[in-house]
Amino acid sequence: MRIVLDAMGGDNAPEAIVKGALLAIEAFENLTITLVGDETKIKPYLTSSERINIIHTTTVITADDEPVKAVRRKKDASLVLMANEVKEKRADACISAGNTGALMSAGLFQVGRIKGIERPALSPTLPTIDQRGFVLLDVGANVEAKPKHLLQYGIMGSIYAEKVRGVNKPRVGLLNVGTEEGKGTELTKEAFLLLKEAPINFVGNIEARDLLLGVCDVVVTDGFSGNIALKTVEGTAMSMFKMIKATFMSSLKTKLAAAVLKKDLKGLKDQLDYAEYGGAALFGLQAPVVKAHGSSNARAIFSAIKQTMTMVEHNVTDTIALTVKSMNEQEAAE
Amino acid sequence: MRIVLDAMGGDNAPEAIVKGALLAIEAFENLTITLVGDETKIKPYLTSSERINIIHTTTVITADDEPVKAVRRKKDASLVLMANEVKEKRADACISAGNTGALMSAGLFQVGRIKGIERPALSPTLPTIDQRGFVLLDVGANVEAKPKHLLQYGIMGSIYAEKVRGVNKPRVGLLNVGTEEGKGTELTKEAFLLLKEAPINFVGNIEARDLLLGVCDVVVTDGFSGNIALKTVEGTAMSMFKMIKATFMSSLKTKLAAAVLKKDLKGLKDQLDYAEYGGAALFGLQAPVVKAHGSSNARAIFSAIKQTMTMVEHNVTDTIALTVKSMNEQEAAE
Repeated sequence: MRIVLDAMGGDNAPEAIVKGALLAIEAFENLTITLVGDETKIKPYLTSSERINIIHTTTVITADDEPVKAVRRKKDASLVLMANEVKEKRADACISAGNTGALMSAGLFQVGRIKGIERPALSPTLPTIDQRGFVLLDVGANVEAKPKHLLQYGIMGSIYAEKVRGVNKPRVGLLNVGTEEGKGTELTKEAFLLLKEAPINFVGNIEARDLLLGVCDVVVTDGFSGNIALKTVEGTAMSMFKMIKATFMSSLKTKLAAAVLKKDLKGLKDQLDYAEYGGAALFGLQAPVVKAHGSSNARAIFSAIKQTMTMVEHNVTDTIALTVKSMNEQEAAE
Repeated sequence: MRIVLDAMGGDNAPEAIVKGALLAIEAFENLTITLVGDETKIKPYLTSSERINIIHTTTVITADDEPVKAVRRKKDASLVLMANEVKEKRADACISAGNTGALMSAGLFQVGRIKGIERPALSPTLPTIDQRGFVLLDVGANVEAKPKHLLQYGIMGSIYAEKVRGVNKPRVGLLNVGTEEGKGTELTKEAFLLLKEAPINFVGNIEARDLLLGVCDVVVTDGFSGNIALKTVEGTAMSMFKMIKATFMSSLKTKLAAAVLKKDLKGLKDQLDYAEYGGAALFGLQAPVVKAHGSSNARAIFSAIKQTMTMVEHNVTDTIALTVKSMNEQEAAE
C-alpha cells in the first residue's frame, strides 16, 4: 500500500510529518510512503529512507491562502502534487495537516467525487466519555446542505464506522434541537424521513447536549451546524482546562494537590484530544483523503496514517460507491 | 414594580420558585410578586406574605406537553395565567422555569410582539473565562431565520447588554464557520452586511471555538445553530465534570488530592453555571418574559427576578421598540 503525505502542511511540518511517517514505516511492513515537500527541510528528520521517497517542491499553500484560488494557481504546491499522486493512481490515499479548504478543493478537483455522491463531507471522529468516540459529518466541507446530502452523509458515516472503527450496526443520529420526530428545520424534518428509510441503523434525532455521552456512533448534520458543534466542543474543553489550571494555581495548597493529580489530568486531556482518533476523513471522494489536525504531532500523524490504511484495506470508497449506486438505482426504479 | 411568577414551572417547583421570590422580596423594597399556581402546594414554603399574592390554579403545563397546543387548550394553566397578568397590565414582567416552548407561545400570543420586530429571540447569557459572560441569541425561539431577523437579534442583544448588563458599546459578533467577511451560508453573508450598517458595535464573524473566551458581549445566530452551540457548551462541560470526577475517584491518592481541591472545583462549576447569570430573556415582546433554567434553585430564581427587574427599570422593551421603529422608518425612507 502506498500513502502520500503533504510534508509541508500543519503547524509542526515538516518535522511531525516526517517523524510520523517513520513511525508508520516501522509499524507496518506493507506500507510505502511518499513525502511531498522541500527536500532540504525534510531530510534532516529522515533518519531512514526505507520505503520512503520524496517528491521535491518548494511551493507551499499556507493557512492564509484562499483555498480554491491557491489550488488552481499553485499547481506545484506540496498539497496539490500530493493529490495528483492519488489522481494518477501512484498512491492509494493522501493525508495533509495543512489548509483544510485547499485539501477539500484539491480532493474535489483532482481526486474527484464518487459517482452518485453529490457532496463530499468532512468527518472527524470526536471523543466520548465512554471512549468509543463518534463520527461527526459534515463539519464544513459544504456549509449549505439539502436533505439528500444528509442522507448520503448518514450512509457514508455508517460504512466508515463499521469498516474502519469496527462498530457493529453503527447507531446513526441526526443532530437536532430536540429528540422527537418533527423537530427542527425543513432540512432536518425532510432528512429525518429519508434517513428513516435508509439501509442504516438510524436512531433518530439527537441533541447537542448528549454528543459526548456516546449515544451515537455517527452524527449527521449540515456543514454549518457541524462546524459550530465541533468548534464549540473544542472551545469549551480548552476553556475549561484553562479555568482548571487557574484554579489549581490559585494557592500553595491547591498547587500541591494539583501536582498529585497532574498525571491523571494529563490523561483526561489526552482522552479528549481527538488527534488520538486520527484525522478527519473527506468522505465521498474516489480515494481516501484525510485531513490531520493542524497541530498534529508525530503521534497524530501516525494515527492518521493508520486510519487511512484501514480505509484502504477495507475498501471504504468502493463500499460507499456500491451502496450509493444501488440506492440511486432503487430510487430511479420507484 | 410587580413581577408575576409561574410557581409550578421547573424541576424544583414550587419550592425553588417560592423561596426565590421570598429572597427577592427581602432584597428589593420596591418589588411586589404574584405567584401563580396551586395554593396548597405554595403555602407550605411561603414563610411571609408581605408584598406577595397568589393566583390559585391547579392546572399545569408539563415538560411533555406540546407547547402550542397546551397554551391554547390549558387556558387556566399557571403559565398561561401568568402571561395573562402581563397582558392585562397587572404585572410589568413574568418569569417561568417551565416548558420553554409553551412560554414562548404564551409570550407570543398573550404578551405579543413589539411592532416592527418580526421574530422574538430566546437569549440566555453564557459564562466566559473572564467572567463577563455573553448574550447568545437566538437559541431556538425560531429554528429558521432570515438575514433581517439576525439584524434585529443584534439590535436587541446590544440594547440588553448595555442596559441590563452594563456593558459600554457591547461588541456584537455573528457566529460563523470562519472569521473573514464572506464566510458561511447565504444567511450569514447577508446578515453580515446588514449588521455592518446597523447602529451597533458590530465586530464581525466569530468562531464557536472562541465563544467562552469573551471575545464578544453579544453573539447573533439563527435558532438552530444557537441551540446547537448552547447545548454543546452545556454537554461538553457536563461530560468533562463527569470525567474529572471519574479521574479523581480512581485511587486513594487522587481521592485525597481531590478532597483538597473540592471547594475550588465547586467554584469552577459555579462559574460555568449559567443559572448565576439569570434566565434567558425572550426579546422582542411587549414586556420582559424570562425563562429561568428548568433546574433552577431558589438562588437562580432570585437571579432571574433581579435581572427581570433591571429589564423593567431600564425600559429595555421601549428602547428596543423605539430603535426598531427608527430603523424601519429610515429603511422605508431610503
